[in-house]
Parts: sequence; structure tokens; C-alpha cells
Amino acid sequence: YLNSCKVYAKGRTDLNDLKAGWMAEPLTDINTLDQESDDMKRRMEMMIMRIQGDICRSFERIEGKRKFLVDRWERKEGGGGITCVLQDGEVFEKAGVNISVVYGKLPPAAVQQMKSRGKNLVGTELPFFAAGISSVVHPKNPHVPTVHFNYRYFEVTCEDGSKQWWFGGGTDLTPYYLDTQDVKHFHQTLKTACDKHGQDLYKRYKKWCDEYFYITHRGECRGVGGIFFDDVEEPNQEGAFRFVTSCAESVLPSYAPIVRKHKDDAYTAAERQWQLLRRGRYVEFNLIYDRGTKFGLYTPGARYESILMSLPLTARWEYCHAPEKGSREDELMKILKNPKEWL
Amino acid sequence: YLNSCKVYAKGRTDLNDLKAGWMAEPLTDINTLDQESDDMKRRMEMMIMRIQGDICRSFERIEGKRKFLVDRWERKEGGGGITCVLQDGEVFEKAGVNISVVYGKLPPAAVQQMKSRGKNLVGTELPFFAAGISSVVHPKNPHVPTVHFNYRYFEVTCEDGSKQWWFGGGTDLTPYYLDTQDVKHFHQTLKTACDKHGQDLYKRYKKWCDEYFYITHRGECRGVGGIFFDDVEEPNQEGAFRFVTSCAESVLPSYAPIVRKHKDDAYTAAERQWQLLRRGRYVEFNLIYDRGTKFGLYTPGARYESILMSLPLTARWEYCHAPEKGSREDELMKILKNPKEWL
Repeated sequence: YLNSCKVYAKGRTDLNDLKAGWMAEPLTDINTLDQESDDMKRRMEMMIMRIQGDICRSFERIEGKRKFLVDRWERKEGGGGITCVLQDGEVFEKAGVNISVVYGKLPPAAVQQMKSRGKNLVGTELPFFAAGISSVVHPKNPHVPTVHFNYRYFEVTCEDGSKQWWFGGGTDLTPYYLDTQDVKHFHQTLKTACDKHGQDLYKRYKKWCDEYFYITHRGECRGVGGIFFDDVEEPNQEGAFRFVTSCAESVLPSYAPIVRKHKDDAYTAAERQWQLLRRGRYVEFNLIYDRGTKFGLYTPGARYESILMSLPLTARWEYCHAPEKGSREDELMKILKNPKEWL
Repeated sequence: YLNSCKVYAKGRTDLNDLKAGWMAEPLTDINTLDQESDDMKRRMEMMIMRIQGDICRSFERIEGKRKFLVDRWERKEGGGGITCVLQDGEVFEKAGVNISVVYGKLPPAAVQQMKSRGKNLVGTELPFFAAGISSVVHPKNPHVPTVHFNYRYFEVTCEDGSKQWWFGGGTDLTPYYLDTQDVKHFHQTLKTACDKHGQDLYKRYKKWCDEYFYITHRGECRGVGGIFFDDVEEPNQEGAFRFVTSCAESVLPSYAPIVRKHKDDAYTAAERQWQLLRRGRYVEFNLIYDRGTKFGLYTPGARYESILMSLPLTARWEYCHAPEKGSREDELMKILKNPKEWL
């Protein structure tokens, strides 16, 4: 997992070297990124550009057949994004890696939602900045799990001029068939990334992940979890950024080996059907419960194609489908209904 | 469209004749239905049992290959339902016709939601009764539209003992390819049913339908509309019941001829793909916006399989799919973005 993208180092990085690793022109002018490279807004943008480049190139090497389509878009209210999508590939049925760097005024409903989460925000239409990377990868082979990750930085300026900032994110795995060794590898890689920044981080964020990715009406988790966190300000801006960077850098080593291991596994039509049914559950979670999706779609001027990129190419719903007792499908369901500790 | 089910007439209907037309034992004991046949709760239950029987039998005659699976379920909080599903048929890819007759205490959130709609309800956990029929039919052939209908009766008892009741419902059509003649036939049949009960009903409820079945984030209607209404108390309980009965009876004559006309139309793989993409939009509407689905799934003890029966067997999401200018797919999109008057 050697990085193909250069890590930015002030005064020591040729800007052209940076750009070579990115999927498109950055949303912020590259000279601004360089000049303001001490500002967390710019550091976050450069970090997510690098991770996007690394991940897309790595997936392209695994894929073989198709390349990512790169869609750079601008938002009239401020900022924009770079959406990379690979569809109908040999290995990846649908993989999206999206970054967005947006700013403007937070709609009152968003301020309200943040207040209800405990944010101490003064005012109703506050200036904000948000930069994040988010991705969902739905492979073709039912023996390769789906992965999702999202890392973001948020800044809000209150009416009294005070600034609040926080980080959020997570990575989680959704297998169709359980391979305990894979799940352990996945969790161990995330834990190693967390452990560098605090002894209890993995434990706390693993629990939060199980609680968040929960399909309430079915009483089951979306997958086998990973890590999830929001409103992170600890230990300080620098420390929180390093933590989030470690998490983002752990995505490829946590997931790519699982793809390589199973991408050529033989599978039956029945296994494919099961995968599509589980993808239906994925759609249910994303459209009914996911805060990011709901928040995104209710925001005026939202780029819904980038938000809904997380949906699978195909999904299926059968009335009252229940896997056969003792089958591998049933084995997965038991874990989804009773999330466990993997390490 | 001769009814196979007997219409109940007090003292003149043999109870065994009634039962013969229904899909299962009623939720309420048949002797209670007979004895309390002046009570709107019982009249509504008998009406929806009859409509369910008529529609399922009629669809089975059209289908040929498969029969409806009949699932009678009870709800521990009070009442239950009869879910009829026909899946993977030759004509119908997934057709669900569900009735439910439920009672108990309304959760505070539901009372709140009704108040926000303008209901003058006193109290927080109020006794309620609800009986309704709801159905979604997803045919296999992309030239046959999807239809949805729902007719319901609601009763709430306030803390001061006063009772409030109302009817709601509607029927709407979601074609994948536009056949103007079909859409006109569909709307004309609904209009004829409405006109018997009031001159402006069709006009008002047609408009309400276009507004309700709207996918806000995409700026498009789910389909070509039909009628939709809620909180109907006019002109009185008897008159409102007759109106709703006319609407429910108009479902088969509005839709069955369209199915018969197109069920054997030739279609291409590209047309099937387009149908699956549009079914993705159907899923988006139902899971993100539909009040019934949301309300249902957030209700403790909800029977989610009956609620999610509305979802298609298969749906598809492609990033930034856009139909070719001037194609038949594009022609449909124009109508969905600018709903028109059909009559």
C-alpha cells in the first residue's frame, strides 16, 4: 500500500508533484492551498485529495477492466466536489469515492440539528466550512464485502465571531458471507490506527459504529461494523487531525487485501441473489436512517447524485425472505443481530 | 370487472357467501361484523376485505403462472392484517395487496404528527382504530405501469371522550413508458368515480396527488399521478364512506385494462434497465418521503414486511444516468418534471 500521492510538506513539496497524484484540480486554488497550508481547512483538503488519489488508483489496479470516471463539480453557494465513480467493472460493481469542500451559510434546520446534538451554537444562519471524503464500494463478487468510509472536518462561525470546529468519520464493513479472518484483519487494522492516538479510541468508536449502523425496524446491524465517531475535538486540533489522517490512511490496508483474496472466488446464482437482498437492506439504512444522506438531501442545492452514489447498482426485496437455518446466510444474520467483539 | 365478492347487506347476505370471496378469515370475528354492521369500523373492514378479494382474484386471472400467497398476521397490541403477495410471476414481478385492521393507543409522536396536520386532538396517548387496504403492483413488462392505491379509515378517541374520524387514500400510476391513451383512461376512470360524489373532487385530489408523490431532491414526480386525499370528513360519514368505496372500486377498471393491453408487449434489455432505474426512484420516494412508510416503520411493533411490500423485487441506481434527448425515456421525464392535466 505504498502511497502514490505525495504528502504535502511546506516548502519541500513541488506543487506539480502533488497535483500529479490527485484525481482532478483541487476545489481551492493550489497556490492558496500552499500559502495557507497552516490553516486546517487547507490541510484537510490536501489530505482528502491525497487519500482519494491513493484509493482510486489502488482500486483501478485491482479492477483491471475499468477506470474511474472523474466528475468535478462546483456548488453555486460556495465550493464543490470531485466525484470519482467506477461502475459495472469486473471486480467493482459500483465504487464511488467522493470529496467535497463546501462553504456558505448553514440552513437553520442544520444549525438546529447540530444544537440538538449538543453543539453550543449562537445564531441561526451561520457561516460554515466543511471538507470531507466519503466512499462506498460495492463489489460484484458476493464473497467480497462492501466497504464504506467517510472522514470530514467541520467549521462553524457563531454570531459573536467565535469559531467551532470538529472532526467526524468512520470506516465499516458489510460482508454478504462471513469470513472471520477477514473481519479480524479489518478491525485489527482500524484498531492499530486508533491505538496510536489513544488507548480507548478503538473500543469507544467500535461501539459507536455498531450503534449507528443499525436498521431499527429489522433489529439488525448493517454489517460487521468498524469505527464511527463525530464531534471529535480531542486532544486538540492537531491531534484530532492526525487521528483522522491515520484512520483515512488505514482504509486501503484494511480492505484491499480482502478484495484481492476473494475477488476471483466462485459463486452461485443463489449467492448473488443473497447479495442483492442484503444490498436492499443497505438501501434501507442509507435512505431511512443515515444522518449524512438525510441531511444532504434536505439541504437546498444538494448534489443528490454524489449523495446517492452510495446506493448499489442493483438491489432486491423479497417478501419475508428468511435464510435457511444453519446456512451461511443464517450464520451472517446471527452476527448482524448480535454484534460481537472481533479482537 | 364483475365482482366476485358479495357486497354485504344486513339480513340479506349469507355470511358464508361473504367469506367465500375473502382471502382469509377477517380480523374481526364474522359474527361481530354482522351484528355491528352499522358501525363504520365494521363496514370499512368488510369493504376492504371485498376489494382485496376482488383485486387478488382478478390479478390471478391475468397472471396465469402464480397465485397470491396469503399471510394473515396478528398484532399483539391489537388487531392484525392480511398480506397477499404474488412474487416472481409471469405478468407480475411483485404485487402486494395488504389490509390491516388495527387498534390500540396512538404513540405520542403519532398524535403530534396528526396535530401538526391540523387535527384538534386533546391528549397524548389516545385510543385509535384504523382499517385500510394498501397495494403496490410492479409488473414485469416495462410497458406495463406500476400502480399503487391505499384507502383507509381512522378513528381517534380524545381524553374528553369525543371521537374524531376521517378517511384518506388515493390511487396513482407510475409508467416507465408513456402511453397517453392509457394515462387518460386511468384518470378518466378515477374522475368518473369522484364525480359521483362532488364536482370538484377529482380536480382537487388530482392536484394533491401530484404534490404528494414528488421526489423533492430530484425535482420530479414519482409517476403520472391519479388522486390523493387525507382527512376527508365531508359531506358526512356516510357520504365519505361511499366516496372512498367508489374510489376503491375504481382501482380494477382503471388499471386492469392497461395490464391486459401491454403484458405481452415485446421489450428490449435496455427498456428493462430503464424500468429498474425508475424503480430505484420509487424506492427513494417510499423510503425518504412517504408518510405512511415512515410513520409505519417508526411505530413500535410495526410489521415492516407488510410496509416494505411496496418495494420492487429489483431496483437499480446508476450514477448520473440521463436519458438520450428525444428518446421515449426522455419524453417520460419531461412529464414527470411538469405534471399535466390529462382530461
